[in-house]
Amino acid sequence: MISRVMSAELAEHAGQRVTIAGWVHRRRQLKSVSFLVVRDRTGLAQVVAASDLPGEESVVEVTGTVTASPRAPGGVELVEPEIEVLTEPYAAPPFDLYRPVVSAGLPTILDHAPVALRHPLLSAPLEISAASVTGFRETLDGLGFTEIHTPKIVASATESGANVFGIDYFGRRAYLAQSPQFYKQAMVGVFERVYEVGPVFRAEPHDTVRHLAQYTSLDAELGFVRDHRDVMAVLREVVAGMLESVRRRAPSAVERAGAILPEVPAEIPAIHFTEAQELTGSDEPDLSPAQERWLCEWAAKEHGSEFLFVTGYPMSKRPFYTHPDPARPGYSNGFDLLFRGLELVTGGQRLHRYPDYVAALAARGEAVEPYEGYLQAFRYGMPPHGGFALGLERWTAQLTGAANIRQTTAFPRDLHRLSP
Amino acid sequence: MISRVMSAELAEHAGQRVTIAGWVHRRRQLKSVSFLVVRDRTGLAQVVAASDLPGEESVVEVTGTVTASPRAPGGVELVEPEIEVLTEPYAAPPFDLYRPVVSAGLPTILDHAPVALRHPLLSAPLEISAASVTGFRETLDGLGFTEIHTPKIVASATESGANVFGIDYFGRRAYLAQSPQFYKQAMVGVFERVYEVGPVFRAEPHDTVRHLAQYTSLDAELGFVRDHRDVMAVLREVVAGMLESVRRRAPSAVERAGAILPEVPAEIPAIHFTEAQELTGSDEPDLSPAQERWLCEWAAKEHGSEFLFVTGYPMSKRPFYTHPDPARPGYSNGFDLLFRGLELVTGGQRLHRYPDYVAALAARGEAVEPYEGYLQAFRYGMPPHGGFALGLERWTAQLTGAANIRQTTAFPRDLHRLSP
Repeated sequence: MISRVMSAELAEHAGQRVTIAGWVHRRRQLKSVSFLVVRDRTGLAQVVAASDLPGEESVVEVTGTVTASPRAPGGVELVEPEIEVLTEPYAAPPFDLYRPVVSAGLPTILDHAPVALRHPLLSAPLEISAASVTGFRETLDGLGFTEIHTPKIVASATESGANVFGIDYFGRRAYLAQSPQFYKQAMVGVFERVYEVGPVFRAEPHDTVRHLAQYTSLDAELGFVRDHRDVMAVLREVVAGMLESVRRRAPSAVERAGAILPEVPAEIPAIHFTEAQELTGSDEPDLSPAQERWLCEWAAKEHGSEFLFVTGYPMSKRPFYTHPDPARPGYSNGFDLLFRGLELVTGGQRLHRYPDYVAALAARGEAVEPYEGYLQAFRYGMPPHGGFALGLERWTAQLTGAANIRQTTAFPRDLHRLSP
Repeated sequence: MISRVMSAELAEHAGQRVTIAGWVHRRRQLKSVSFLVVRDRTGLAQVVAASDLPGEESVVEVTGTVTASPRAPGGVELVEPEIEVLTEPYAAPPFDLYRPVVSAGLPTILDHAPVALRHPLLSAPLEISAASVTGFRETLDGLGFTEIHTPKIVASATESGANVFGIDYFGRRAYLAQSPQFYKQAMVGVFERVYEVGPVFRAEPHDTVRHLAQYTSLDAELGFVRDHRDVMAVLREVVAGMLESVRRRAPSAVERAGAILPEVPAEIPAIHFTEAQELTGSDEPDLSPAQERWLCEWAAKEHGSEFLFVTGYPMSKRPFYTHPDPARPGYSNGFDLLFRGLELVTGGQRLHRYPDYVAALAARGEAVEPYEGYLQAFRYGMPPHGGFALGLERWTAQLTGAANIRQTTAFPRDLHRLSP
């Protein structure tokens, strides 16, 4: 490996002659002195140099003496440098990566993602995203969950017939999985508690700031629950673990993104769907985006929480595998977790008895045959279980305040975008 | 949550009255006494019961008194039980899950995966797989890598024109990604060190015991390397970390699977491709499966290592993005890691200068245009870098001695199989 000191550790080497390596983030040639700012994965380092400096985005190794300099990043700079250029860039970036704000619009950023994401403001959401996923897994590993990997090519649509990508599978018609729902439920029969972090695909025909054709779904499912409230308790731990991981692993990204991390109450407030209707003066069978925003403001005011569970959505609005509320059969043991005005997680208790699945499909006028593979698990004895799915990009967008979900993933896919 | 003690912890509760929950693994009604063996995610527990016991795969809660019993699993059993059936099975499993060996053939197992995988021998590879992935990530997290998630829907084939699944993408032609190669390289420009664990897709038209249409690829890529040997050093740490994680996290699965975990030498022996040719008396430009097996036996004998690096494969046999050996331009800075007779990992140093990519494509008679998105990263300054890809299912098969790679993943996809 190229022997080097990372920029974030320079201060520990004051007085020593060391080598750093990275990209020329900025060069400033003044009359009497010139500066080179070198960017590596840990941050920026300032080099006091002679003239004739390599251009921005050149890849360089710089050997110099670490010297205190209160105005430099990290309080030190490199002086008396020897600069070696490892790679010359072949073109100038489409916008200046060194400016504190991003001067380009979203289409330019997305078209030039491989270089645009080098801007410290644009890489920050991806670091927060990575730290979040680590926290998700860490929390569930600690609770005895097993990670699974399930098929992304499936024989029939999983969530609904619409918005599914067709694929030519050795001359047969197949589809890209819209969720790992059926597989994670089946694996509860094997490991009791499972999770998967993986891509899901939605042929979303609308061009909105909130939808992607591929996103990363954080899925968990667990058996031997009493009802959906046990699932909600695990979700509370997961969300807290994700935030703790972001705090610990990505403090610089949090700062760059200006992200305000929420506190997670020991118990997240929960209201029943019918209470939500009463509070918002509605009799619709679902919550509108405006109602979700209003309810979040209400929860902040009443409970001091940026999170709010809404439970008991009407069965008619939930998928066929949803477990009804035994006490109020028109309502479900399903829930949403709202966060900062938006539905962040959907989950609930599922049916676990085979005859209940047969009846649920019949009640919706659906044939059993397309679900045969899925229903297998329930034929052979399944415990009461439930789970949830959290969209990683939406989570990151809510944490960072991103106006467009495309800013939370490196190479978004949408109605119009298939590259880079 | 249903309040319960896990079967593996029963011995700690000797003399106490506790509740366990799980599946009826086996019931044995003898003349004078009956036994119920209950399976949960931690193992098996024996219950001494009266007659009239629930059938196999019933989901039960059993409350009883923990009593020493040297011949029972874990040295304890539950006596004076109260048994509550939570879910009755609707059918008998296609083969007996309680028998120490699996009596069904692979087609039956795969057709009935949701229930077949409950057999302790069949779930073991999946636990080893999960523990391996945790070790992969843990090792790379410790080395300053950042996790990424890249598109699985792409505009053009990544690895070669063949074996690619076509997809209808909003009326346009698109493909399922055969690897995250281009994206992970681009992200070296952002984070220097990145990894991804995700599905890749190969429209493999042959029905073999070693190929899947979807598999889980463990990909890593890192910048600021001197050459491929730095990549090999990281890979050595990763393999050791994966094995350490399996030892620590999945000891029961290792035992059930009869897996023999290899030792990883402090430095894995490495030979140049030309030496491999000499040793095997070949002048072909690639190694045959028989040669790979021979070389592994040789490494075991000569170096006491089950792992062997072969470096410097001819450029003509490696992808266009491969970095040549500066001292011997017909040979590459690419490597394979062989393990127990099989290529387990492919990796190497990549080209990092834009003009080199243009020249490499021209030399292969390929147009630059389909690669425009990919080549962007190299236009703007990329450090010397390299990486590797390890197929998770193949790794698990080599560890467990699985005769067919389909035994190492829950729901395999192949030429003929699209469900469950």
